Amino acid sequence: MQVRDLTKGTGEWLRGIGPKSDVVISSRIRLARNVAGFPFLTRCTARDRQALQVQASAAIAQCNLGPAVEFLDLQPLRDIDRQLLVERHLISKPHAALEGARGVALSKDETLSIMVNEEDHLRIQVLRSGLQLADAWAQIGPIDDQLEQRLHWAFHPRFGYLTACPTNVGTGIRVSVMLHLPALKLTGEIEKVFRAAKELRLAVRGLYGEGTEATGDFYQVSNQTTLGRTEEQLLEQFEQAVVPRIIEYEQHARRMLLTERTVALDDKIFRALGLLRNARLLTGDEALFLLSHVRLGVHLGRISDVDMAKVNELFLLTQPAHLQMILGKELDGDQRRAARAHFIRQKLGAG
Amino acid sequence: MQVRDLTKGTGEWLRGIGPKSDVVISSRIRLARNVAGFPFLTRCTARDRQALQVQASAAIAQCNLGPAVEFLDLQPLRDIDRQLLVERHLISKPHAALEGARGVALSKDETLSIMVNEEDHLRIQVLRSGLQLADAWAQIGPIDDQLEQRLHWAFHPRFGYLTACPTNVGTGIRVSVMLHLPALKLTGEIEKVFRAAKELRLAVRGLYGEGTEATGDFYQVSNQTTLGRTEEQLLEQFEQAVVPRIIEYEQHARRMLLTERTVALDDKIFRALGLLRNARLLTGDEALFLLSHVRLGVHLGRISDVDMAKVNELFLLTQPAHLQMILGKELDGDQRRAARAHFIRQKLGAG
Repeated sequence: MQVRDLTKGTGEWLRGIGPKSDVVISSRIRLARNVAGFPFLTRCTARDRQALQVQASAAIAQCNLGPAVEFLDLQPLRDIDRQLLVERHLISKPHAALEGARGVALSKDETLSIMVNEEDHLRIQVLRSGLQLADAWAQIGPIDDQLEQRLHWAFHPRFGYLTACPTNVGTGIRVSVMLHLPALKLTGEIEKVFRAAKELRLAVRGLYGEGTEATGDFYQVSNQTTLGRTEEQLLEQFEQAVVPRIIEYEQHARRMLLTERTVALDDKIFRALGLLRNARLLTGDEALFLLSHVRLGVHLGRISDVDMAKVNELFLLTQPAHLQMILGKELDGDQRRAARAHFIRQKLGAG
Repeated sequence: MQVRDLTKGTGEWLRGIGPKSDVVISSRIRLARNVAGFPFLTRCTARDRQALQVQASAAIAQCNLGPAVEFLDLQPLRDIDRQLLVERHLISKPHAALEGARGVALSKDETLSIMVNEEDHLRIQVLRSGLQLADAWAQIGPIDDQLEQRLHWAFHPRFGYLTACPTNVGTGIRVSVMLHLPALKLTGEIEKVFRAAKELRLAVRGLYGEGTEATGDFYQVSNQTTLGRTEEQLLEQFEQAVVPRIIEYEQHARRMLLTERTVALDDKIFRALGLLRNARLLTGDEALFLLSHVRLGVHLGRISDVDMAKVNELFLLTQPAHLQMILGKELDGDQRRAARAHFIRQKLGAG
């Protein structure tokens, strides 16, 4: 597999077409697993890491994990290739930045990625577009079971799965949804959502998970602890209670903006579209921010001449590694800002 | 004369078509004059003010000051009418805000305005588009002479014309030019111009003179003192030395931006145009700022589908009093911002 080839398709979850996709961009379940008999990665020698990678990739190859799963050795890749995988949420930022033997197994449709030698020996994750946690859970369970038969997870009868970081001990599960909450941001009610999430012991993070800020009104909501509750309880809380309530808040705020603050709403939306269609230099953050408002405008039917698929595609393709990969050359910061603006103008049409 | 009728035409100086109009919006000469036998206005009774206004308006009517000069009593006017005269630079902000008898004589082409009972008994001003100080001086001299034959200016053989504020004593002249300096602002060199102006004892002010800030990259440069130099010396300094040097600086900065920072320049220009064509709410200050960049873009040939006359017209017509007068109704702040954006979209075409 060539990393470059990824830019030609769009993974299932990136299409933004799943259930409730007006608010929920994607659903993710990730399981942290460690192989019995090896120390945690912070205490591994280079030889241990190498051995882990060999065992893990062999096990992955022997299992039947879904259509066209391939293992990718990250070490020999260029920085830009690893960066592209981060932009597609297939590996984490720390996984890209680490040294030493590490890799990732990917399914062709990009719903499955298994990071080897990240913080834990294996991190199995399933990503789906829209609100599809039950489907994600149905997909990840058998994968975990199959891998366990070959890799023997470190498991303690009382504590559950043992993990490098104590917060993951137990089920080792992290459930998260990526939400697009532009209306709650515009009305200032987003803080209420944060407070409510905190009370439910949920974390709210930015686009790229831990340590990243919310940009373009995208928020990742995930569980903080994994101990003391079953996976099913956690999933039920998320899919039946937490997420539907946030969706309802956001939709209420959108309706309010639409009926009571129409002009102010249109002002935000059309300024964003006007800038995207006219700017000659755009940073990634500004593009994200503007695309976020355009996405809202398309969903609310205020913008009629822009296709939602095109907007969703632009979120992905205007990121630095994608942009350079598509244009087939390395670009410095100034060149990227110019290329990004040019690319967006081409896609959205000049104003 | 109805104030409303002014909005139907565009005064000579407002057309922005005079010499060097790429940088010089307008040239102005103003003479401060007081009538012998009356105290300065700060010490006038209401009766004195009234008598002054009667004498001044009679004198103006008897003189031959140019085509269709009419006297307008400011006191009975609505606030919005006075505001409209300020926006057209025919009276000053303090003149609009004052209480008591006061008025202004205007020529139909709006090159001449004579404020009665502002800071001095009379303030005669000639306004021309572009750099036309010599022409303005040729126009104002005979007007001053004719009025003097009927009103007898307060004059001291040693100090010259006596005025309410000591800085005007002497010739009573103020010479000023309104400059559009967007390139010097963008390159950050504008501060150098300010310093040089200060050394030459010139004042740099905003669009509406004393006490107003520079908005939309418009700067009014004028002399600070009137004592010790003849009018001709002052005018020569302005028209032959100061203004041409500033024009040269600005044009140099524009050429530099055009050749060395083309993309950054286009970014500013087209963002401005994109916002003007798409925003649904625009404050007066933002409109001015954006129109300033569009004006630069049209002058440099970067924008080809917008007519300069339309841009110059928008500077004037998007001001609060003009906007309300054109739409024929009073509007609060929110309504004005919406109406301004709508008006501009109509004129420039939606993007």
